[in-house]
Amino acid sequence: MNWRDYCKKVTPYTPGEQPKINNLIKLNTNENPYPPSSLVVEELKKLIEDYDCLRRYPKPNCDMLEEALSEYTGLSRDHIFTGIGSDDVICQAFTTFFNSSLPVLFADITYSFYEVWAELVGFPVELVPVKDDFSIDINDYRKENGGIVIANPNAPTGMALTLDQIEEVLKFNKDSVVIVDEAYVDFGGQSAISLIDKYDNLLVTQTYSKSRSLAGLRIGMAYGNPEIISKIKAVKFSTNSYTLNEPALRIASAVLKDEKYFRDCCQKVMDTRAWTVEEFKKLNFSVLDSKTNFVFVSHKNIHATDIYKYLRENGILVRHFNAERINNFLRVSIGTDEEMKALFKVLGEMKEI
Amino acid sequence: MNWRDYCKKVTPYTPGEQPKINNLIKLNTNENPYPPSSLVVEELKKLIEDYDCLRRYPKPNCDMLEEALSEYTGLSRDHIFTGIGSDDVICQAFTTFFNSSLPVLFADITYSFYEVWAELVGFPVELVPVKDDFSIDINDYRKENGGIVIANPNAPTGMALTLDQIEEVLKFNKDSVVIVDEAYVDFGGQSAISLIDKYDNLLVTQTYSKSRSLAGLRIGMAYGNPEIISKIKAVKFSTNSYTLNEPALRIASAVLKDEKYFRDCCQKVMDTRAWTVEEFKKLNFSVLDSKTNFVFVSHKNIHATDIYKYLRENGILVRHFNAERINNFLRVSIGTDEEMKALFKVLGEMKEI
Repeated sequence: MNWRDYCKKVTPYTPGEQPKINNLIKLNTNENPYPPSSLVVEELKKLIEDYDCLRRYPKPNCDMLEEALSEYTGLSRDHIFTGIGSDDVICQAFTTFFNSSLPVLFADITYSFYEVWAELVGFPVELVPVKDDFSIDINDYRKENGGIVIANPNAPTGMALTLDQIEEVLKFNKDSVVIVDEAYVDFGGQSAISLIDKYDNLLVTQTYSKSRSLAGLRIGMAYGNPEIISKIKAVKFSTNSYTLNEPALRIASAVLKDEKYFRDCCQKVMDTRAWTVEEFKKLNFSVLDSKTNFVFVSHKNIHATDIYKYLRENGILVRHFNAERINNFLRVSIGTDEEMKALFKVLGEMKEI
Repeated sequence: MNWRDYCKKVTPYTPGEQPKINNLIKLNTNENPYPPSSLVVEELKKLIEDYDCLRRYPKPNCDMLEEALSEYTGLSRDHIFTGIGSDDVICQAFTTFFNSSLPVLFADITYSFYEVWAELVGFPVELVPVKDDFSIDINDYRKENGGIVIANPNAPTGMALTLDQIEEVLKFNKDSVVIVDEAYVDFGGQSAISLIDKYDNLLVTQTYSKSRSLAGLRIGMAYGNPEIISKIKAVKFSTNSYTLNEPALRIASAVLKDEKYFRDCCQKVMDTRAWTVEEFKKLNFSVLDSKTNFVFVSHKNIHATDIYKYLRENGILVRHFNAERINNFLRVSIGTDEEMKALFKVLGEMKEI
C-alpha cells in the first residue's frame, strides 16, 4: 500500500466561474449588485485604529457576532451558530447530524454542493425528484430517512415553499434533522426561524453572501433550538476553535444596524426581478416563479447552451448547469437595472430569438 | 431512533482562555507580543476605497495569497495550499490523507488538537511516548503506520528536531503521509520545506498566527509536492469553495513584503526568550530547550497548579494542561520585555519560591 491509497476520494463541487476579464457583466454567481452597507467603512476605519488587535486570536465562539445576531433576531445566543459562509455551516451540519444508515433526502434539482458534502461525509442519499414544473411536493418527504435538506427558496429554480408547507414536512419528520437552507430567503421567501422552538430537529441556515452584499467576507449562520445548536457547536469546536476572523466578526456585527439599507437593497433586487421576468417573457422565455435574486429561464426555441455561449461572447456571464433535466435552462442573477438592460439589449439582438 | 442518535459524538478541544479581564498579562495562547506589519494598515485603507468588492466572492483558490506565497518562497503555486489557520489546514490534511486502518502516529505530548481531529475524522491513533526528557526519539517512528504527524518544534514542550532527524523519519516512512506542523518554526526551528520535492509524501504546515502577529486573521498554509497538494485541494473544494475572506487574502499577501520587520520581531522574541529562560532558572525552574515563542517550565518545589493560580490572581495568565506527564508544567508565552519583567516581579514575590 502507498499513501495515495489512503487518500480520500472526492468529486469536488464546481463553483460558478470567476473570470479575470474586465467589463464583464457578471450574472452567474448570485452576488448582490449593490454595495454592502457603508457601516463596513466605519468598521474598517475602527480596525485601522486598532490593528494591533489582529495579533490576538478573535474572541472564541464568535462572541461578538452571536451577540449581534441575538439582538437582531430576538433569539438568545444559544439558538445561534455562525461559520465561514453557509457552505461551512451546512457542511458542518451534515457532519454533525447525518450519521444514520438511512438515506438523507433532498431534491434532485437543488444546490449541487449537497451531493458533494454527502460523499465527503459519507452518508447515503436519496434524491427526491421535483415535479415536472420543478416544484417540490412535500408529500415526497413522507418516508423513512436519516435527515432532510430543503433549500427554500430552492436553487437554481428560485421557487419557494410556503411556511405552512415547511411545517408539514416537520410534522411528519420528527426523528431526523431537517435543514432548511435559506440562503435566498430575504428576496421574498418565508423564513422557518419562527418554527425552531416548536421543532427541536429543525436547523435553519442563512448567509451574508447574497442579501447583505458580503460574499467576500464569508459569513453564514444557523438557527435552531439550543440542543441542536449545541451539537453542531461541539463539532465546530472539534474542527477549528476560531473560524470567523476579526474583520469578519466586526463588520458582520456592525451592518445589522443598517436595517433600512438592507431592506431597500432587497426591494430593489425584487423590483428589478419583476421587470426582468417580463422582459424574458417578451423574448419567448419561460421563467420559473422566483423568490430569489436570480431567475431560472428556458427559451422556447433556442437551446440554453447556445444562448449561454452567445451571451459570453458578448461580455455577459450567466450560469448554465450541464445536468439532466435542467441543461436547457439558464440561471441569471439579478443585477442592477443597467446590467439587466444591457442583457436584454444583447439578447434582443440575437438572430434566432 | 431519534435524531439525537444520529449525531456525531465528539470531545471538543479546549483552547486557552480568552478572558474579558482588562490589564491582564496574557501569556497563555502563544500570541505575538508585537503588532503585525504596518502594511496591514495600508491594505485596510485600500479596502476602504474598494469596499464594494466585498459584495463579490473572493477569487477562488485563494489566488492572490497563493501567488504571494509563491513569490515569497520561490515555490510554484501548485506546491502551496492555504486555509483558515493551520488548524483548518491540518484538519483537512487529516481528512484527506488518513484513511487507512493502520494507526496514525504522533507523540503523546504534542498539540492536543491532533487527537480531537482523529476522533472527528475517525481513524486509529497510536500515541508515541516522548522520552523522559520530553524529546522525540525518531527511532520510535520506525513502525507500520497510516500516517505520521510531528509538530516541529513541538508544543507544548517547545523542543525541536533537526532537519536531518525529520529526514530520517521520511526515509523510513515513504508509504504514508508525514505531516510536519511548523506553527512555531520561525522562532529558531529548521523548516522541512526544503524536503518537499524529495519526499512526495511530506506535507509541511505553517501559520500566520504566531510569528506574523496575525492570529486574528486566521491564516494557515501547507507546502508539499504538487501531487499531495492536489489531493488536499480536492477535499477543500468538496467542503467550501471560498474559505479565506477578502480582507485576509489581501492582508496576508501584502505583509510578506515586510520581511525585515518580520525577522526583527522574531529575533526580539528569541532574545526575550533567552533572558526569560535565565530568569526562570534563577527561580529554581527547570526549563525545556525552546525553539518557539513559549517556554515549558516546571518548578523544583512548587506545583504548577499553585503557581498558575497565584499568577492568575495577580493578573498574569499562563497555560496549564491538566494532563498526564505534564501537569506539573506551565507553558508561558514570550511577551514583551516589560510583560516578562512583570511576570518575574510577581513570581519573585511568591512566598515559597
